[in-house]
Amino acid sequence: MATTTTKTGQPLDRPQLDSLLRRRLFFTPAFEVYGGVSGLYDYGPPGCSLQANIIDTWRKHFVLEEDMLEVDCTMLTPHEVLRTSGHVDKFADWMCKDPKTGEIFRADHLVEEVLESRLKSDKEARGQKVEVDEEKEAKKKRKTKDTKAIKLDDAVAQEYEEILAKIDNYGGDELGLLITKYNIKNPTTGGDVLPPVAFNLMFQTSIGPSSNLAGYLRPETAQGQFLTFQKLLEFNQQSMPFASACIGKSFRNEISPRAGLLRVREFLMAEIEHYVDPEGGKKHPRFHEVKNVNVGLLDRKVQLSGRTEVTHMTIGEAVASGTVDSETLGYFIARIYLFLVRIGVDPKKMRFRQHMANEMAHYAADCWDAEIQTSYGWIECVGCADRSAYDLTVHSKKTGAPLCVRETRSEPLHIEEWQVDLDKKKFGPKFKKDGKTVEAAVDALTQDMREKLSVSLAQTGKIQVDVPGVGDGKVEIEKDLVKIEKRTKIEHTREYTPNVIEPAFGIGRILYSLLEHVYWSREGSEERGVLSFPPPIAPTKVLLVPLSGHSDFKPLVGRLSQKLRQLGISNRVDDSSASIGKRYSRNDELGTPLGITVDFQSVKDNTFTLRDRDSTKQVRSDEDTICAAIRSLVEGQKTWADVQEELPEFTQQETD
Amino acid sequence: MATTTTKTGQPLDRPQLDSLLRRRLFFTPAFEVYGGVSGLYDYGPPGCSLQANIIDTWRKHFVLEEDMLEVDCTMLTPHEVLRTSGHVDKFADWMCKDPKTGEIFRADHLVEEVLESRLKSDKEARGQKVEVDEEKEAKKKRKTKDTKAIKLDDAVAQEYEEILAKIDNYGGDELGLLITKYNIKNPTTGGDVLPPVAFNLMFQTSIGPSSNLAGYLRPETAQGQFLTFQKLLEFNQQSMPFASACIGKSFRNEISPRAGLLRVREFLMAEIEHYVDPEGGKKHPRFHEVKNVNVGLLDRKVQLSGRTEVTHMTIGEAVASGTVDSETLGYFIARIYLFLVRIGVDPKKMRFRQHMANEMAHYAADCWDAEIQTSYGWIECVGCADRSAYDLTVHSKKTGAPLCVRETRSEPLHIEEWQVDLDKKKFGPKFKKDGKTVEAAVDALTQDMREKLSVSLAQTGKIQVDVPGVGDGKVEIEKDLVKIEKRTKIEHTREYTPNVIEPAFGIGRILYSLLEHVYWSREGSEERGVLSFPPPIAPTKVLLVPLSGHSDFKPLVGRLSQKLRQLGISNRVDDSSASIGKRYSRNDELGTPLGITVDFQSVKDNTFTLRDRDSTKQVRSDEDTICAAIRSLVEGQKTWADVQEELPEFTQQETD
Repeated sequence: MATTTTKTGQPLDRPQLDSLLRRRLFFTPAFEVYGGVSGLYDYGPPGCSLQANIIDTWRKHFVLEEDMLEVDCTMLTPHEVLRTSGHVDKFADWMCKDPKTGEIFRADHLVEEVLESRLKSDKEARGQKVEVDEEKEAKKKRKTKDTKAIKLDDAVAQEYEEILAKIDNYGGDELGLLITKYNIKNPTTGGDVLPPVAFNLMFQTSIGPSSNLAGYLRPETAQGQFLTFQKLLEFNQQSMPFASACIGKSFRNEISPRAGLLRVREFLMAEIEHYVDPEGGKKHPRFHEVKNVNVGLLDRKVQLSGRTEVTHMTIGEAVASGTVDSETLGYFIARIYLFLVRIGVDPKKMRFRQHMANEMAHYAADCWDAEIQTSYGWIECVGCADRSAYDLTVHSKKTGAPLCVRETRSEPLHIEEWQVDLDKKKFGPKFKKDGKTVEAAVDALTQDMREKLSVSLAQTGKIQVDVPGVGDGKVEIEKDLVKIEKRTKIEHTREYTPNVIEPAFGIGRILYSLLEHVYWSREGSEERGVLSFPPPIAPTKVLLVPLSGHSDFKPLVGRLSQKLRQLGISNRVDDSSASIGKRYSRNDELGTPLGITVDFQSVKDNTFTLRDRDSTKQVRSDEDTICAAIRSLVEGQKTWADVQEELPEFTQQETD
Repeated sequence: MATTTTKTGQPLDRPQLDSLLRRRLFFTPAFEVYGGVSGLYDYGPPGCSLQANIIDTWRKHFVLEEDMLEVDCTMLTPHEVLRTSGHVDKFADWMCKDPKTGEIFRADHLVEEVLESRLKSDKEARGQKVEVDEEKEAKKKRKTKDTKAIKLDDAVAQEYEEILAKIDNYGGDELGLLITKYNIKNPTTGGDVLPPVAFNLMFQTSIGPSSNLAGYLRPETAQGQFLTFQKLLEFNQQSMPFASACIGKSFRNEISPRAGLLRVREFLMAEIEHYVDPEGGKKHPRFHEVKNVNVGLLDRKVQLSGRTEVTHMTIGEAVASGTVDSETLGYFIARIYLFLVRIGVDPKKMRFRQHMANEMAHYAADCWDAEIQTSYGWIECVGCADRSAYDLTVHSKKTGAPLCVRETRSEPLHIEEWQVDLDKKKFGPKFKKDGKTVEAAVDALTQDMREKLSVSLAQTGKIQVDVPGVGDGKVEIEKDLVKIEKRTKIEHTREYTPNVIEPAFGIGRILYSLLEHVYWSREGSEERGVLSFPPPIAPTKVLLVPLSGHSDFKPLVGRLSQKLRQLGISNRVDDSSASIGKRYSRNDELGTPLGITVDFQSVKDNTFTLRDRDSTKQVRSDEDTICAAIRSLVEGQKTWADVQEELPEFTQQETD
């Protein structure tokens, strides 16, 4: 794995970043004073504000921009709904238990860990350099026993490599066979493990006092959205296409959570369900607006050939060449890209990877993940799946609710078809108890068969139909009982189940990846970390720093703070006795993009210096001008370069 | 119960409002196509947007305004935390089961329902008018059997009335006795019910694959906040007072949910934990800013005397007179009041009611509820509790974590005290195995005792100390073993557990109450409902209406829509073929405060009419002026009256 880098291209020192994030309370293990619960994290003030700003931007970028119908559905979900959706049966991982110690392993992780450790040992025995894969190291919960370097047969080493390449594709039985065949044990104790059993990843509970209504915490927000489809379509005045959106927590009872915010048990999602007519190639009315957006794609074919090179092309080219299946899928890939760049993700550390056929969730027809490169490897942060008509169909079938679109055809549809009329009065007496069965067999005849039978009827005066279970399986019907004619049917309405394109965002993963991308440290003083959030995303926008504790500064600082607050701009005052440099350093770590220094000149003429976090450059102007500049920076209308061009630079005062 | 009224003072027709809210998809029963789950609701687009705007205003009003430390804590909470907080033992309701039918009743509701029905029947038998209490009627899940009017003894009727007045105060045993004594049965079948058992209201689940880590969905956001106290204090640079805040879902497994959004199983809360030094009377530094806010108070004393009159006074007077215990509690009562008015709650339908001593949650030292009047009665929407040091103390005791503040005293504290020195070397050999017990008894001596013993030691050369369990319970210590002297102890730091003032907002209840308060119907056409949200709260701000489907209008509408979107102002286009009046009516029901009509004049000179939802008055001006007016209305800086004064009225066009 290539070393990941900071925003400024230096090697990323993750422990140093982690320490910053802990120190500044971006997030923290939940219930830490009780020893913590793995996979559960709390967001502290800067993390919480960052999350709120990402969500706010998401809402503007997607919901407001496209008039999506936002809904807020419950997390508690009854068993029946998730059984129909397939989650009760299929939303599971395989786990193995060590019966002696009671330890539980995720079966694929266990196989992976043991084989990798053997390969590493083999390399050592061969005197080869061992590359440490940080992602994999981070995944390990426990230290494996220090083993002596043992050389493997070349063929065995080869087998191990092949298994590891396919590790995501094995089912429970196959994992069990691998464990037996390769004698895989508990890495800590060397003890045997039991065969893998499926562990459903949903948190179960019971709703109401009688405990006979089983429920789960939702694994995705999607199901609630699907079940309100009919009401939303009506709200949208029956107009297609449209999208619903939902922002909320989902849950996944991971067997062994790891890698910090990247694999947790409770997480914030933002999901869009875009409903589209499956006919006509899933066009999108606004595709032209994004067709020139250039994205990095890693398609299925490249992966199948064992390679991982990303191909850069415009989304227009990708759709035209068939790499991306439809305009609608392509439209959302481009919109996801623009969103991620807007909040500060480095476009050079982003790619869209197509799922392999056997890797997709049970409901997906096609899927592209927006993956972001971090020190844990390429992390799936947004899934963009074509769920086809899967969900609406299964729920409709189960409940009888019409989860479909009925459209009046602009022109009635004329359908030429062979119709069969049976003379019911004579039919019953003749076939008696078999009447219904014969009738059903006739109704099920294809158009081709009907045409052939009409010929036979005209020629022989009777037809012969296959009816399994009646007599010898063939039934003859005379012409006095049956008529076959070609007629024209006129359909005025069209009924169809829309397909769903679903961009699903894991906000916690995006947030963590973003932290890695905006992190860097000042040249020459590596301990001075900076988080260069774009101003609209930054947790706090402005730091107010009085030069000293002098009483003249207090009213000015108070007035400025209130004024900014009224403009909706979050700001903090640091009037501690630390040096100005120290106070700015602290806020560099918090990612505060702007600072105002209040000095003696301010008291005299109501002018202030405004400092840019990234360049540490300063400009100076009067209160109103400074506030206007801040507002335009925070709302994303201007950059610091614009402001620096407009306002006089200020260099007198040493701030570092 | 007095009839509740609409915004314009007409009697509120709840079924009509309900029908509007359903039709416009403000909220809807969750999983309705699966038959629904009681107590679970989804918010549709206008409800979801309304909720987001309330939350946004809340964040500005509280978090941003007071630099609160917002956190986002997990909902999944381990058993141990909620056992310590008292919720595992005490967060329960009493339920009774009918063993024949399997029906489960909330015990207090059952007693209430049966006794009320008997009293009603008694009144009918006495020929008295029976007032229908809509709140109570709505609470009933099922129809009680139609009973003949039966007259009660005067004494019995009196007993029933007294029981009903105290119904919230009975425990499980007492409810059981009432059920037996008054022969209370299943109202539908007349069958016996089993004695009440406690039903814990938390949803239980298990965390991780081993099922030995029991957890619950949090019943409040508070516990997560308390457990991060120490980190937040450090983040706040050890400075007190400060507040944390958390917005998120909480859960309550109601025995029998009812009354729509008012009693649900999953609900959004916004909670503040304000930490204050318990010494010095819990002053608040910004109390002077709110001291003239006039609020309606219903204190404990008035309620004890059986009355419900609200007393109006400024919060300054309330604190000065001791009605409200402290400045900090008073400060938040005033701030809550200002928030509710800001989002559109009618101040005449709002009161603050103090909890009775036996009504408070197990952790509360004092509590005032902001209650809002609705057609369901007075509804508790915000609780403002003084939780004292309860939570930090129990968690600290359980875990050993120092959930407290350590302050360097500005002046070291000099404490004069009697100190006792024991000569350990001689002490051990003399008292042998009793040494530790005697020493502990000496250490436990009060200052008064020490002073007396010092006199006795000086006079008699020995002291006598009570040491239960050693010898005859009295031990003599000679002066060669003990010295007692008055000395000065100097304390440089002060350690204390802060008290917590907790304003806790039930967002769903506020949202529903608000809907009732802003609802009215146009005079003379009662079916035309209007929801008069203040513009900053309204789900959609602007409706764009082209006069007709003429193609000249399309580009203007598109440009306006995009321009408003860029200003962050949500808007919808209605270019359906319905009349302008119909289109505006639909949006009156959605509460859209502003409408822009695009007509042929607009095409000529780029001027537009702007319509006010409440008055249906219109003004006309050029695009930029109209957009600026909209922005100032939506941000709450101007009222429609301001705009109407500034811009020329437009009367030509008929819009109704």
